Amino acid sequence: MASFQTTLRKRFPDLAADLDAVDRLLRRELGAGGRFLQEEALRLLSAGGKRLRPVLVLGSARLGDFDQGAARALAAAVEALHMATLVHDDIIDSADKRRGQDTSVHLHGVNLAVYTGDWLLVKSLQLLSGAGSATEIRTAVLHRLAEALEEVFTGEVDQYQGRGAIPTLDAYMDRIRGKTAALFAGACAAGAKSAGLEDGRVETAGRFGEAFGMAFQIRDDLMDLLESGDAIGKPASHDLEKGNVTLPILMAAEADEGFRTDLSDYLDRWHGASGQAGGAGHLLARARSLGVGERTRTLSERFRQDALQCLEALPEGEGRAILAATLSSLDEMK
Amino acid sequence: MASFQTTLRKRFPDLAADLDAVDRLLRRELGAGGRFLQEEALRLLSAGGKRLRPVLVLGSARLGDFDQGAARALAAAVEALHMATLVHDDIIDSADKRRGQDTSVHLHGVNLAVYTGDWLLVKSLQLLSGAGSATEIRTAVLHRLAEALEEVFTGEVDQYQGRGAIPTLDAYMDRIRGKTAALFAGACAAGAKSAGLEDGRVETAGRFGEAFGMAFQIRDDLMDLLESGDAIGKPASHDLEKGNVTLPILMAAEADEGFRTDLSDYLDRWHGASGQAGGAGHLLARARSLGVGERTRTLSERFRQDALQCLEALPEGEGRAILAATLSSLDEMK
Repeated sequence: MASFQTTLRKRFPDLAADLDAVDRLLRRELGAGGRFLQEEALRLLSAGGKRLRPVLVLGSARLGDFDQGAARALAAAVEALHMATLVHDDIIDSADKRRGQDTSVHLHGVNLAVYTGDWLLVKSLQLLSGAGSATEIRTAVLHRLAEALEEVFTGEVDQYQGRGAIPTLDAYMDRIRGKTAALFAGACAAGAKSAGLEDGRVETAGRFGEAFGMAFQIRDDLMDLLESGDAIGKPASHDLEKGNVTLPILMAAEADEGFRTDLSDYLDRWHGASGQAGGAGHLLARARSLGVGERTRTLSERFRQDALQCLEALPEGEGRAILAATLSSLDEMK
Repeated sequence: MASFQTTLRKRFPDLAADLDAVDRLLRRELGAGGRFLQEEALRLLSAGGKRLRPVLVLGSARLGDFDQGAARALAAAVEALHMATLVHDDIIDSADKRRGQDTSVHLHGVNLAVYTGDWLLVKSLQLLSGAGSATEIRTAVLHRLAEALEEVFTGEVDQYQGRGAIPTLDAYMDRIRGKTAALFAGACAAGAKSAGLEDGRVETAGRFGEAFGMAFQIRDDLMDLLESGDAIGKPASHDLEKGNVTLPILMAAEADEGFRTDLSDYLDRWHGASGQAGGAGHLLARARSLGVGERTRTLSERFRQDALQCLEALPEGEGRAILAATLSSLDEMK
C-alpha cells in the first residue's frame, strides 16, 4: 500500500473503511463474470495504485452531508474512469509496465486494450448512474465529471500533438491541467456535490483539487527527472524519450541557452527519427546538474499554497482534515 | 442522404425537422472550438450516415409525452455514442474508409483515433447529462444506455477473440446482439423512457429495437457477401478476410460439408499467417453459389416479424408509425 495511505488510514479509520469498501465495490462491479474484460479488470485492480482520487472524493464528500453509499459508488466510479484513461494512455505511450505490472496493451495488444479502456469507462458510467443519491445530484455529478473527462482527453491530444517541440510555460501548465488536474478537480467537486454543498463551495472544492493536481503533476515530473539518474545509455522511460518536454526540462532550457540549443537539436533528431533518438539521457543529466529541482519545487509549492487557501474556505471538520492530510502527504507520494 | 431517410422525411415532416435539429446540435456540441478533436468530429459528421439511431430515438420518444428538447439531445447523444464506437472499431479493423471517407485511424494514426473515440463518448455523456428532461428520467436513460454500451464492447471483444474460428449459430447471434442490436435496443428504450412510458412499455420498445437490430445486422452481413462478387483475387474487405465468420458463411458451412472443410482450412491458414491468408474470395463465391441468400433472409425476416409484434404492443400514433416505416424500409438501407 502506498505509504501516504497507511498514515491516512491510521488517522481516519472511517476513511479506511470506505477505501476498503470502494475496493470491494470495484472488484464486484468490474470483476464479476469471469470473461476477458472482467479478468483484465481484476488484474489491473490487483496492481494497486494510490487510490488518490477515491481519497479526494471521500474527503470532499465529508465536507457536507456524507451519503456513504453514494460517496463510495462515486469514489469507485472515479477510480474506474482513471483506470480507463491509464489503459488508453499506455497504448499511446507503448508502455510495457504500469504499477509494476504488464500493461493491457503490452499483454493483449492494441485492439483489446482499446476495448478494455472503453469498457472501464462504461462501467464507471454505470456506477455513476446507479449510485444511491438523489437524481438531481447524480446528474450534476455526472455532468461535472464529463466536463473533467473532456479536459483530460483534450489535454492528452494537446500533449500528443505537441511532442517534439519546446512548449511555453503556459502551454505546459494547460497540458498538465488537462491530463492530471482536471480529474483531481472533478473528483473533489463531484464529492462535494454529492454531499449537498452549495455551488460556490463545490467550485472551491474543485479549485482545491485542481491546484492539488497541478502540484502533484509538477512534483511527479520532477521525480521522473531525478530518478532517471541511472538512465544514461539505457533506454530511459522518461517523457523526453517520447518527445515530451516537462517543467524541469523547460526550467533547464530557460536557465541555460546552451541547454536550450541542444534540446532543440535533440527534438529535431527525435522528429527525424520518428520518435527514436539517442541522447535524452545526457540531456537529463545536464538538467539535473543545472539545479532545476529548486525552481521546479517553488512552482509546485505555489500550487500547494493555492490548494491550502481553497481548503480554508471550506467547512471545517473531518472532510477538510482528510483533504489537508492528503495534500500534506504529497511528498510521500509516488 | 440515405434513400430510406428521404421517404421518411417526406411522410413525417416533424421528424424531418427533428433530424435537422439533431444535426445542428451535433455540429454545435461536437464541432465548436476549431481544435483537432472538433475539426475531426465535423469531418466525421460530414460523411453523413443513415442517422438510423436518431430516427429510432425520435420515433420512440413520440410513443408518449414527446419532450422535443430532451428527445433531440438524446438522439444526438446516441449518434455520438455510435460514432465513438465506429472510430474505435476502425482501429481494430485497420479500416481505411468508412462512409466513403478516410477513417480517423487511417488519417491520423491509432493514437489520435483512440482519443477521438474517447472524446466522442464523453461529448455524448455531456449531451445526456445536460438534456432537458426531469433528472430521474435522465438518470434512467443514462443507465439504460450504459447497459447497452457494455453489451456493445463485450460483443466486440467476443467477436475479436472469436476470429479465425467457426462460431455456433448461438455465438453468432450473441455477437451481433452485442455489436449492433444492443444500441438499437438502447436507442428505442431510452427514447420511450424520455417520453415517460411505463417500464413494461419501455422494455417492449427495447425489444423492438433489439429485433430490428438483429434483422438489420443479418441483412448487412448478407449484403456484404452479395456485394463482394467482384472481390476474387482482389483484396476484399469482407469480414472473412478479418477471420470473422458471419451468418451467410455459417449457412454455407451448414449446407455443404466440403465448404465447411475448406472454410476450416482457410481459417487455419488465416491463423498461421497472422490474419493474412489468400482464398477468401473463392470461398465467398462458393457461398454465393450455395444459395445461402434465401436461408439468411428467412432468419432476418423472423427477427423483423418479432419487431412487428413488439410494435403492436406499443401505443398507436405517429411514433409507432415512424418506427413501423423505418422497419419496413430495412431493404432500402445500406
